Amino acid sequence: MSDPKAKILSAVKSDLAEIEIELKRNLGAHLEIVNDTASHILFAGGKRLRPLLTVLCARMCGYRGDYDYTLSTVFEYLHAATLLHDDLVDGAPLRRNRPAAHAVWGNSIAVLAGDFLLARALSIGVKTGNLKIMEILAQITEEMSQGEIHQLIRKGDRDLCEVEYLEVIRRKTAVLIQGACRVGGLLARTTAAQDEALGRYGHHLGVAFQMADDLLDYTADADLLGKAVGADLKEGKMTLPLIHALQKAGPSDREGIEEMIGQSEICAEDFRSLTCILKDCGGLEYTRNRAECHVQKAKNALDIFPSSPAKATLEDIADYALSRKV
Amino acid sequence: MSDPKAKILSAVKSDLAEIEIELKRNLGAHLEIVNDTASHILFAGGKRLRPLLTVLCARMCGYRGDYDYTLSTVFEYLHAATLLHDDLVDGAPLRRNRPAAHAVWGNSIAVLAGDFLLARALSIGVKTGNLKIMEILAQITEEMSQGEIHQLIRKGDRDLCEVEYLEVIRRKTAVLIQGACRVGGLLARTTAAQDEALGRYGHHLGVAFQMADDLLDYTADADLLGKAVGADLKEGKMTLPLIHALQKAGPSDREGIEEMIGQSEICAEDFRSLTCILKDCGGLEYTRNRAECHVQKAKNALDIFPSSPAKATLEDIADYALSRKV
Repeated sequence: MSDPKAKILSAVKSDLAEIEIELKRNLGAHLEIVNDTASHILFAGGKRLRPLLTVLCARMCGYRGDYDYTLSTVFEYLHAATLLHDDLVDGAPLRRNRPAAHAVWGNSIAVLAGDFLLARALSIGVKTGNLKIMEILAQITEEMSQGEIHQLIRKGDRDLCEVEYLEVIRRKTAVLIQGACRVGGLLARTTAAQDEALGRYGHHLGVAFQMADDLLDYTADADLLGKAVGADLKEGKMTLPLIHALQKAGPSDREGIEEMIGQSEICAEDFRSLTCILKDCGGLEYTRNRAECHVQKAKNALDIFPSSPAKATLEDIADYALSRKV
Repeated sequence: MSDPKAKILSAVKSDLAEIEIELKRNLGAHLEIVNDTASHILFAGGKRLRPLLTVLCARMCGYRGDYDYTLSTVFEYLHAATLLHDDLVDGAPLRRNRPAAHAVWGNSIAVLAGDFLLARALSIGVKTGNLKIMEILAQITEEMSQGEIHQLIRKGDRDLCEVEYLEVIRRKTAVLIQGACRVGGLLARTTAAQDEALGRYGHHLGVAFQMADDLLDYTADADLLGKAVGADLKEGKMTLPLIHALQKAGPSDREGIEEMIGQSEICAEDFRSLTCILKDCGGLEYTRNRAECHVQKAKNALDIFPSSPAKATLEDIADYALSRKV
């Protein structure tokens, strides 16, 4: 099988089915509207990347218990909670080709349902009886909220540099993916060295995923993506393709780019010419190269683990981070 | 000293000073705007009831360590986090005579700063190394989010009964106050019986506080309250004074009440005549009686603890729940 996505999906088919069951089973809201809102975001065709990482890391580290699927849902719930709040913060009308939750139920329910999902995640985490895991969950929520705020207050800031961009994506994306990996390992009682290796794998994978996301916002097919391309640009989100292009562009290209940042309406022709500038200035290629470098570092981090099917799939997932189309 | 508030304040003066220091010291946000937003809600003259309960319960149970003040901030952070989200949900323009955070910084920052405060609370809780405490914190956040949603979806519902009202205020108010008390005790390694007693004290105190709040919304001085009286009525929040009055009112009074529920503009005269109806139908007196009953139950729950200054102050706080003017 040469299609990396098909290869991964075939390797984790039964895991994905188990995760799906647990996601439904653990929701446990008392109110129908909470279940509806949470389900709207949870069961809209997400990749289940984060729970899958927990399950695979636990397995690679030799876990033989039966709490891995349950615990893995924590990371999908946390992810869904931040999506609920972020879509509201960004004013995003669509998520995976469907109206965003705040557009269906209003801001209030979206905020409170996000709070509920976060709380559910903690409740499931507590049941491990493992304080290290609770420490990671607390740290994740703290970093993520600050990463989102950091991104928000820097929107439209043409001077945002690559270092600050990296700090934002570490907080808003990488710490959660990193946590999903480490918690899987901790369930299997990893050594400090293994925990550190899983942390490195998760960090670099998370950074690569976010860079690929930021690339896709300029290069993807809108139908596949499930939302309009160019959304980051319209919102004034300064991502690496833009940051690098601004740095390399001559005065006239720079002016052309800057004019479009944060414009609520950008016609297709203007957007096409912008992506040409980003390409000419090396913004797309540079981002791809940086992401590739993080994919490689993620895979290298797994070197200390002996070969196993779970390890092979984790390596495939790292490759997939960059090859994916959505 | 006959003024119960002055008596309590004199007994806890140095505790309040320590709590204030810890609230500033533990905030630890990386971004200035997060500190500003959190501080706006945290340092606006709150009563510090929840941290005080943690400190007093720990002391009454014989705690001799030095983590009580730090841990007590968890409950003020959680409280502030829900206020940030709730003011947004309610569209409340004012909080303690100042513009609400969402009105100053916008909905996005209010949502994310609330998320940050919740996360900070968890991080501080984890440092106790006590899983029971983390279990309580997870449960609190889960119940509170559902209580808020429950209240939200029942807004304006004339058929909301007392049982459902009690369930809403248990979730949205009492579980946090109960948690603040129990966690204080757990820090001092309470027995199961003591933990249960503190849980009962906190539950009944929380219910009494919320009933008193709901009364004040009809009877308080707006300047003292720091927000407009009648806010609950305008928002369509069905609280006990209203619920009981609707149940007891004759057809014409009932119609008069129902007409005003959820009206965004209510003139002073109409509001005065409504409070007269609530009074005539016994809504105010009934609520006061129910609150008194919960105050008594709260105090009774402390019977198993030997006399001490901390216990006496906890009893005074229960009395104060109902005697307060704001």
